Amino acid sequence: MTVANAFDPANAAGFAEDEAALIARRQRLLGPAYRLFYAHPVHVVRAEGVWLYGRDGEAYLDAYNNVASVGHGHPHVVAALARQAATLNTHTRYITDGILDYAERLLATMPAAISNIMFTCTGSEANDLALRVAKAATGGTGVIVTENAYHGVTDLLAQMSPSLGPSAPVGPTVRVVAAPSGQADAGAVFARGVSEAIANMAVHGIRPAALLVDTIFSSDGVFADPAGFLAPAVELVRKAGGLFIADEVQPGFGRTGAGMWGFARHGLTPDLVTMGKPMGDGHPMAAMAGRPEHLEAFGRNVRYFNTFGGNPVSCAVGMAVLDVIEAEGLIANASEVGAAFKRELEALAANDGRLGAVRGAGLFLGVDIVDAQGTPDATRAAAIVNGLRERRVLISATGRHGHSLKIRPPMVFSQENVALFMDRLKDTLAGL
Amino acid sequence: MTVANAFDPANAAGFAEDEAALIARRQRLLGPAYRLFYAHPVHVVRAEGVWLYGRDGEAYLDAYNNVASVGHGHPHVVAALARQAATLNTHTRYITDGILDYAERLLATMPAAISNIMFTCTGSEANDLALRVAKAATGGTGVIVTENAYHGVTDLLAQMSPSLGPSAPVGPTVRVVAAPSGQADAGAVFARGVSEAIANMAVHGIRPAALLVDTIFSSDGVFADPAGFLAPAVELVRKAGGLFIADEVQPGFGRTGAGMWGFARHGLTPDLVTMGKPMGDGHPMAAMAGRPEHLEAFGRNVRYFNTFGGNPVSCAVGMAVLDVIEAEGLIANASEVGAAFKRELEALAANDGRLGAVRGAGLFLGVDIVDAQGTPDATRAAAIVNGLRERRVLISATGRHGHSLKIRPPMVFSQENVALFMDRLKDTLAGL
Repeated sequence: MTVANAFDPANAAGFAEDEAALIARRQRLLGPAYRLFYAHPVHVVRAEGVWLYGRDGEAYLDAYNNVASVGHGHPHVVAALARQAATLNTHTRYITDGILDYAERLLATMPAAISNIMFTCTGSEANDLALRVAKAATGGTGVIVTENAYHGVTDLLAQMSPSLGPSAPVGPTVRVVAAPSGQADAGAVFARGVSEAIANMAVHGIRPAALLVDTIFSSDGVFADPAGFLAPAVELVRKAGGLFIADEVQPGFGRTGAGMWGFARHGLTPDLVTMGKPMGDGHPMAAMAGRPEHLEAFGRNVRYFNTFGGNPVSCAVGMAVLDVIEAEGLIANASEVGAAFKRELEALAANDGRLGAVRGAGLFLGVDIVDAQGTPDATRAAAIVNGLRERRVLISATGRHGHSLKIRPPMVFSQENVALFMDRLKDTLAGL
Repeated sequence: MTVANAFDPANAAGFAEDEAALIARRQRLLGPAYRLFYAHPVHVVRAEGVWLYGRDGEAYLDAYNNVASVGHGHPHVVAALARQAATLNTHTRYITDGILDYAERLLATMPAAISNIMFTCTGSEANDLALRVAKAATGGTGVIVTENAYHGVTDLLAQMSPSLGPSAPVGPTVRVVAAPSGQADAGAVFARGVSEAIANMAVHGIRPAALLVDTIFSSDGVFADPAGFLAPAVELVRKAGGLFIADEVQPGFGRTGAGMWGFARHGLTPDLVTMGKPMGDGHPMAAMAGRPEHLEAFGRNVRYFNTFGGNPVSCAVGMAVLDVIEAEGLIANASEVGAAFKRELEALAANDGRLGAVRGAGLFLGVDIVDAQGTPDATRAAAIVNGLRERRVLISATGRHGHSLKIRPPMVFSQENVALFMDRLKDTLAGL
């Protein structure tokens, strides 16, 4: 088991007494499965926009959290949350209006073929549901994922999340393909991997149910280009009887700067779409959307009721998030600021051999960190992540080798924030 | 697939035009997996305390919703939610204080041996996690559940929820035992079923991982008595190497009127405890608590990160719910009002042969509805549920035969509310 950027409690020597006590209290109460970030964990008490604040008012620039997508504590979202919580919060077995207005508005951001939506509380629940639906719709059980995929916390999804390591083994009907190459031939190479996986399933008598991918391949190291590279693989899976599930939990809600959904950059209409993290600016809400014909078998034969999913408070919050994305032009902001951010990183990489490939779309960027021979250097990546943290800029690392910086700020990130980030990054690199 | 009390959209003839339009819009947007309650679904726009309100201000007495446990829209809870959402809402990989204070307070309501807690967003996520932990701790895969159990929405839990019907088949390592008998010999009978399940697992080479039960057996029809009847079965499972997982999603947080947790009535300390629904008075939050020795293997080898689980807003809301339970004496209220409620129902049953056994504890009651021969009568139960709904009192039905009334109001239910309920119930019965 490896978590890039995980704090090791054995290394708490030298911490202030109250800090060490807090960490010990955490371990005592929350147990051994919880991991903190950073060699020196961050203690936060308040947040606003792109800023997290520590106990003494020190400000951390948040260049990592996509959940607080429209900015931490956005007043329009908080007001909607408070108003609706005081008015009505119940389940979907009574008729309420908010869920219908929200469903309609959200589905309007997708291709017309995707016209049904089901609400859950987390991206994990959405992915788990999508797989149940795919199995019911296809009669298959085979699922294809990428080599460092992460799709969620449930027992089923842990079997489709090779990034969890050997203690959470990949399931018997799951096939793992290489992450995208990041090169011009990514489409052909990825399709070849998928083709081999389908052939291998056939050998084992496994019928394909789905190709399940995060459309920006976040945990594989952020692979966005060339736009469209997913299309040939999706065609193969459909030909073999499987569905294409677009896991939009990370790229969704405008982060790529090219429309609301990551799959749009690939010119695709998925069969099922899952979404979560940024959907409620921190409120626990998620969803799965799909084509009615694929929901038919599941809806007819199996029942599904999610106690909190689609409740009036979640729907009011989701509406408010969509309001902010539109009113503040956040997709355009992700596109413009993200492009400038990428250019700055590329310019830096051109002059500093420790920075390798720079990838991404909009405000979702990955930067490979390499050694003098150009090979992945996770130790150096961790040093940069921790160096930035000491300079009060928050990011993390990702990818199979843990050597790719993961930069994924709230979508209200500004050119000024980029300038500050670059200053601190240069300072960090100078100090290594 | 059967859902007790599900609305059939084919029966919308005669509805007002706007109502029929809303229902059609729901089907078009949410698809075929969603089910409304009642022959004539309820449309709600506002709620307060034990009351749900319709579009024209008509008031429905809520005798069903345990999620709004401390009352719909409790101002103390809403204020905590709004305050914390405006201040900070982030994940558990930074140090925050609220989660520690909440974890400590919640764990203090449990036996001392249960000293670790992990936060999720739904009871399903908590049960799914508990099973992953049980498998890691025991090395086993076998799970024992009751014949009409319901434990959640994930792929794994659907395999342990026979109440979902044959389209969601029970998993190959799951064994199903009869629901408790509800008689004085319930302990011996239930233990015999568990013993046979363990023996059957041995035949198949399956090592037991857990006995997983809702400690009030809600979906089986509400079986609370005799207090302590679970103990012999738990002893058998432990002897066979499995853990006892107490699913407190339904009975937890004081509803039984005898302390905070349903397992306490059985004189047991579970190995793992899951909780959800009433935890946040409607806010999506849940948790799994356990003994550190059982979390050890899972925590060391597998990582678990729940994006929204245990965030500062959830913890503030959870704290506020505990405040209200204490300040308003809701456990005592559940005990006193629940006992009076049960007596009233028993008195009615003594004079009306259509009412059979009355079961339950605190404000969680089940009433069997039977025909002239005393056999389960789901049709009559549905008629009573719908008759009450027409009289603006909300309950539902449960159990393997769908013939048990499920009465589970917010814990702020008063003696006056009971009187109103009984009036409406008598009126309903008179009209059948």
